[in-house]
Amino acid sequence: MTGAATVAPPALRRVAIAGLGCIGGSLAGALRAHAPELELVGVEADPATAAEALVLGLVGAVQPLAAAGAWAELVVLCLPIAALPAALATLAELERRPLVTDTASTKAVVCRWGAERLGPAGFLGGHPMAGREASGLGAARVDLFAGAPWVLTPADASARQRFAPWRALLERIGARPLELDPADHDEAVAWVSHLPLAVSAALAATVAAALETSPPAAALAASGYRDATRLAAGRPELSADIGWTNGPRLARALRAARGTLDELLARLPDADDTAAAGPGGDRARSRLVEWFAAAQAGRAAVIDAPPPPPSERARAL
Amino acid sequence: MTGAATVAPPALRRVAIAGLGCIGGSLAGALRAHAPELELVGVEADPATAAEALVLGLVGAVQPLAAAGAWAELVVLCLPIAALPAALATLAELERRPLVTDTASTKAVVCRWGAERLGPAGFLGGHPMAGREASGLGAARVDLFAGAPWVLTPADASARQRFAPWRALLERIGARPLELDPADHDEAVAWVSHLPLAVSAALAATVAAALETSPPAAALAASGYRDATRLAAGRPELSADIGWTNGPRLARALRAARGTLDELLARLPDADDTAAAGPGGDRARSRLVEWFAAAQAGRAAVIDAPPPPPSERARAL
Repeated sequence: MTGAATVAPPALRRVAIAGLGCIGGSLAGALRAHAPELELVGVEADPATAAEALVLGLVGAVQPLAAAGAWAELVVLCLPIAALPAALATLAELERRPLVTDTASTKAVVCRWGAERLGPAGFLGGHPMAGREASGLGAARVDLFAGAPWVLTPADASARQRFAPWRALLERIGARPLELDPADHDEAVAWVSHLPLAVSAALAATVAAALETSPPAAALAASGYRDATRLAAGRPELSADIGWTNGPRLARALRAARGTLDELLARLPDADDTAAAGPGGDRARSRLVEWFAAAQAGRAAVIDAPPPPPSERARAL
Repeated sequence: MTGAATVAPPALRRVAIAGLGCIGGSLAGALRAHAPELELVGVEADPATAAEALVLGLVGAVQPLAAAGAWAELVVLCLPIAALPAALATLAELERRPLVTDTASTKAVVCRWGAERLGPAGFLGGHPMAGREASGLGAARVDLFAGAPWVLTPADASARQRFAPWRALLERIGARPLELDPADHDEAVAWVSHLPLAVSAALAATVAAALETSPPAAALAASGYRDATRLAAGRPELSADIGWTNGPRLARALRAARGTLDELLARLPDADDTAAAGPGGDRARSRLVEWFAAAQAGRAAVIDAPPPPPSERARAL
């Protein structure tokens, strides 16, 4: 919490959004809807996307990053992780530096880059827990962030103080700001976001490889297959950036998942006709019911978890 | 295909549906809507469900299985796999046996049970490729089977001939009958249905176990986590029955999935700061892009697969 002695900085008036894809476009739309007094400038390399954003009125102008950064009080980088080092370098060269925040899926590496270029109070790591497999401005939704946690990883109290107006804007668009240490964020998303992505992709790759030996398989794929592999349909570059910048934590989660698969394997009967084998078959079935019931309860524990207490949402670092 | 010399049996008039849960209830509703001339009788052990089915007009009466089987021309067993042996035994004892089919998720074991009790032409294995995690009559939907493949596994040409009227009814409710050998069915669903179920449950169990060491994880779970684990929310008994009666094929699929996870593990950088390591980091990223792109393409190959040709839908056995 900011102490009583600190004076909140004034509200933001000029915000630049770099990258008008699904996240940047949704953010521009949400700010337009909920903070209409803001002036918004976009940064977008693709001319067609830039033109569409202007036609839709999402931003008042599209400019190169250096010009937008010199004009803005705050720049939100909604760019692929691999594009962040160059963008941060461009902003670091400005005479009057804006506040800079981002929306990338991993925070430890990105925040280190940010602090190196802009100082610990010049960059605020951010990660909205929302997204879609579809990408680009066409996938943007004005309510994408409504009700969704938006992780913020201030490096220190000074960063928290300087970025307080940005946090206030996030609350106005309906997001739920949640402060975390960058490493704690990366650990948490390794489990609930990056592991589902990796497992979903591994499932899709495994099934595809089986089509040769089981040609009818594709015709029998139903909604269960679709849902379980939905994350595999996302942009490979985004997934790769996650693995690239959160490798050790994702690897730990993957090894844990492999261990859980091994537990199930150990409970599967090794012959089809176990079912007809009487009491032994019943025991085999009970051990499987137990395993699947634990998984069902595990899902409920995550989904029914209460939101974190206010103290954790804005704890002192 | 049935030969020109065979005479199609007359259309069905009296059908019994044993088990008025999501599948049996949806089937009753679909038959009511698309074949209103049929007389339908339900078999249901739970009195509240039986009463609800009568109030909704899904069936004209609810009777014990022996009585319904003696009355019906065809009985559809929409029961848990573990309940099938006893139900088949009851029907086998009838003086005038009805045709019997089922809707269970595995077919090799079930068809063996059916043939043992009722003879190869007395039982037709069936499996609608539709379902929901929610269970019970409340989860039933009159359009659950519309457009969905409904696998049929006739033991021989005589079975195909005798069950032709049932196939005709399935076509009337909008399902797409697809003939397969029971073992081919079990192999195909091991990949596109049972593996997603098992992986989804393993993912849910793995993430739940991580909540102790990463308390913020639950708060950050978003739609990706929900979709990837949706199948884990299904009834543990149904999942267990699948593992119990399709164990070796599911085990093979699980080992393949484990191998795919190992491929990803081998491509993950072992330090967070690989990203800052220059050309080496770029190579690591490229190898990850490649892996995720293959997974994305694999999903598209399954989802965009053309439906099987008519010859495979009704091939000669």
